[in-house]
Amino acid sequence: MHRKHIFALAGAALLAVATAPAMAAEPDDIARIIDEGLNHSQVQTTAAELLDGIGARLTNSPNMRKAEEWAIQEFRDLGLSNIRREGFEFGRGWESTYSYANLVAPRPLQLTVAPIAWMPGTNGQPIEAEVFVAPMSKKEHFDAYRGKLSGKIVLVSTPGTGDEPTRPAFTRLDSADIAKRDEIALPIYDPEAADRRSDRVEFALEQAAFLKSEGALAMVKMSYRDGKLLHGSGYTFQDGKSPEIPGFEMAAEDYRRLARLAKTGPAPVISLASDARFVDGDTKAYNIIAEIPGTDPKAGYVMAGAHFDSWALGDGAVDNGAGSLAVMEAARILKTIGAKPKRTIRFVLWAAEEQGLLGSLAYIRQHMVERQGDDGSTSMENYYKWADLWPIEPKPGYYDLKAYFNMDNGSGKLRGIHAEGNVGAEKLLRKWLSPFAGLGAGSVVSGNTGGTDHVFMQQVGLPGFQFIQDPLDYSARLHHTNIDTMDHVRFDDMRQASVVMAGMLLQSANDSETLPREPLPKQPSVTEPFKYEYPED
Amino acid sequence: MHRKHIFALAGAALLAVATAPAMAAEPDDIARIIDEGLNHSQVQTTAAELLDGIGARLTNSPNMRKAEEWAIQEFRDLGLSNIRREGFEFGRGWESTYSYANLVAPRPLQLTVAPIAWMPGTNGQPIEAEVFVAPMSKKEHFDAYRGKLSGKIVLVSTPGTGDEPTRPAFTRLDSADIAKRDEIALPIYDPEAADRRSDRVEFALEQAAFLKSEGALAMVKMSYRDGKLLHGSGYTFQDGKSPEIPGFEMAAEDYRRLARLAKTGPAPVISLASDARFVDGDTKAYNIIAEIPGTDPKAGYVMAGAHFDSWALGDGAVDNGAGSLAVMEAARILKTIGAKPKRTIRFVLWAAEEQGLLGSLAYIRQHMVERQGDDGSTSMENYYKWADLWPIEPKPGYYDLKAYFNMDNGSGKLRGIHAEGNVGAEKLLRKWLSPFAGLGAGSVVSGNTGGTDHVFMQQVGLPGFQFIQDPLDYSARLHHTNIDTMDHVRFDDMRQASVVMAGMLLQSANDSETLPREPLPKQPSVTEPFKYEYPED
Repeated sequence: MHRKHIFALAGAALLAVATAPAMAAEPDDIARIIDEGLNHSQVQTTAAELLDGIGARLTNSPNMRKAEEWAIQEFRDLGLSNIRREGFEFGRGWESTYSYANLVAPRPLQLTVAPIAWMPGTNGQPIEAEVFVAPMSKKEHFDAYRGKLSGKIVLVSTPGTGDEPTRPAFTRLDSADIAKRDEIALPIYDPEAADRRSDRVEFALEQAAFLKSEGALAMVKMSYRDGKLLHGSGYTFQDGKSPEIPGFEMAAEDYRRLARLAKTGPAPVISLASDARFVDGDTKAYNIIAEIPGTDPKAGYVMAGAHFDSWALGDGAVDNGAGSLAVMEAARILKTIGAKPKRTIRFVLWAAEEQGLLGSLAYIRQHMVERQGDDGSTSMENYYKWADLWPIEPKPGYYDLKAYFNMDNGSGKLRGIHAEGNVGAEKLLRKWLSPFAGLGAGSVVSGNTGGTDHVFMQQVGLPGFQFIQDPLDYSARLHHTNIDTMDHVRFDDMRQASVVMAGMLLQSANDSETLPREPLPKQPSVTEPFKYEYPED
Repeated sequence: MHRKHIFALAGAALLAVATAPAMAAEPDDIARIIDEGLNHSQVQTTAAELLDGIGARLTNSPNMRKAEEWAIQEFRDLGLSNIRREGFEFGRGWESTYSYANLVAPRPLQLTVAPIAWMPGTNGQPIEAEVFVAPMSKKEHFDAYRGKLSGKIVLVSTPGTGDEPTRPAFTRLDSADIAKRDEIALPIYDPEAADRRSDRVEFALEQAAFLKSEGALAMVKMSYRDGKLLHGSGYTFQDGKSPEIPGFEMAAEDYRRLARLAKTGPAPVISLASDARFVDGDTKAYNIIAEIPGTDPKAGYVMAGAHFDSWALGDGAVDNGAGSLAVMEAARILKTIGAKPKRTIRFVLWAAEEQGLLGSLAYIRQHMVERQGDDGSTSMENYYKWADLWPIEPKPGYYDLKAYFNMDNGSGKLRGIHAEGNVGAEKLLRKWLSPFAGLGAGSVVSGNTGGTDHVFMQQVGLPGFQFIQDPLDYSARLHHTNIDTMDHVRFDDMRQASVVMAGMLLQSANDSETLPREPLPKQPSVTEPFKYEYPED
């Protein structure tokens, strides 16, 4: 399919290479990367093994363990070196392959639900009870419902009304969109952020404990997307922190119907079942690492990474099978062309990103920096507080990492890279991207991005960067949902992304220059000299 | 909620009324319609009874029978007159409240399915078998699969790839959109259309018979929308025409995953179950009719209608609970203001629109015209051929119908009306709409529309018109799907629609003029004097 188009693309890119001045890598290498990645891509067949064959990869679930084995074998088959897992304390395994719900009264009707991750199920047996709609978002709301929930299935979300999706679900970036990303957000020092995050996790535990103590039979929250999309995300994964009440997420349409019926008539009766279960054993999660060793052992290393874990519904396809597969395909391309980089190229598949970037955080704690007062605890509280411990002490490995490239925004093609506020890095980033301008990936923007595994690197002054990607339908309907499946991976985009990633790795590994570092961060000193406050605050 | 906004709207409309010249109805009536419909609307509470309380209304299903009872009682409670059902031969009842599917091998995974209407289920018991992907769209494809399907669950759709929704799901019309509807499509005489339609129904029966004769255990088709949306539409409803093999529709993501797995590995094994069952008894479907009698028995009648039946998934909310509810609310408004029209105002809820506009067709056969050669048969073949029987003989009731207004495009507000090619009618339609220009409903366009219950009226020269409506997300994700629920009914729009419908009915019932008729259609004489054809054709 599309052979003509493929060759046309490769030809255009070759032309760009031939006329580009002063390449960091041999022009031959770039041309061979493009040929191998565009005309001999393996990314679709590899994707089928991971996404269709294994599927969702909730951290520490049995499926994630299978996927870890598979990835290690893939790296072995590619002939990579120093393949290893690096473990860190995480929490419990959990899985579910059956859930069912139906309206019993006022009329029979099948409902759409999924179990909430790391909450108990019903051992596959139906629980039947009246629903009680009890919206609650903080402890102070509990009092209003005390004494009313015994024997009920409790609906804890505010139902709201149906959404009106007036923007296209599937988009690509134009040059104006990319230009907007050139702005650097001013840093905000927010020492209370950790407390707010802890409070949210704490609330989930308190809510479940409250419902249990009141004698409720199960809790149901509403999907935050319309259209029968489900997510099932939950955060009570730590050992010893599991709720004791079954938890379900219900499709918004079904949840709101129950809430409306309960408002005007007798309480609807529903039945709920799931086989959600904890799978205990090894409580460690594992980052998976493999390398192409550099020819100069003293030259340090460059690294590409993506989180390998996903939520439990769907197949973890664009979040973040796509990033993981691009990293693996970049490794395949570089091995296939026989790349012999000066610096080591390291490929890493992170675990537990979805629970707070915990895999990349573990890597930084293990290899990069020590923060004063970090007692090594893996409590959620400690995870959240970690970023505000001062000072930062670099470990010996800190200066070895010369560049880190992260991909975690779906399967859209790479349009360039965020310099993440490190404006000094833009010149080299632009140079390395220049061969890929004809493939649409030539933009370097100053702006920063958050929410994925380069974040903790930035926070300690390491050169970690996230690519710019065409958004496609990632945010609108795929991110964390039950339709995050291979159908929605765009493989033309993935071929491009794998090529660009391979090219960035090889050039950053071979360049005579390395990226300028930002200063080692010190505790921000915040002055608000003209601020007044009310006396009672 | 929004009280200020409500009064502002009413005020603006009152102003328009006060300054409008030469009203057909008393200005007081229009003002009171607006006040009653915008400030005292009952449409949301009525909607909850029908959509949440009863739900989906597949023609002749037990739920549809409940809804018929409910509608008759509603009309009684409103004090309407001549409330009646008019039956016509349709076919079997069918319902399902349980379905379940899961992937057994290569890995455990819950799948999303729904039973296909008017196909058998599995008596609630799971059928487990390997899948066989056998795309087929015509009889000629059967040979390729003969001898291969015994004991298999057969996937009969071509899987294709995931969609890329680059247009917004939810839209409203701007003036350019409305202007495009001002164009009349030239009539095409297509005497073979009936055969093509018959072939499609015939193929569904032949396909099921082929699969049964080959020993297949069930057939599965793919949803035609992505994103876990399901439809469950099926057309084998006639008595004596039921397939003997269970039929399921599967979510596109799940179907495609199976198809990919089957392409490269051992055939996946799945399990399917549903409690789909035929509910036999009365094979007649019923149109429901109610009236506000006119003061002049010789002045004929005007009519508003909407189809009351839906598909079996979701709650039949925007297709076409919305139209039905607007008709009922218009009746309530007109009764509440004590309207005493000169002509009778008739309200009608059609049955079996989803199976081929069969309710409105029955009405026309019963009351409006006789077509020569119509033997009264209700076979699908006869239904499809009916529109090409000539000549048409008007029955006595033909000239009594002075105007018919149809609503069947979701819950979006009315923006005006299609003159449906009857350009002579535009002047009066524009006059009647003029009080509602400030509510956004002032447009009269020449263009025609199809696909719903005014179509057979037009085909025999009756003055049947479809409103222009804001599309909202009707086509993109609600039409026939499992998320066609009350969440996606926009009640601000529905208040407006009910008001405009009431206003059109009262003015057309009272106007001294009636709409000009189109000529009684005669068999089109098609000449293609300059056309050459190849000899073998």
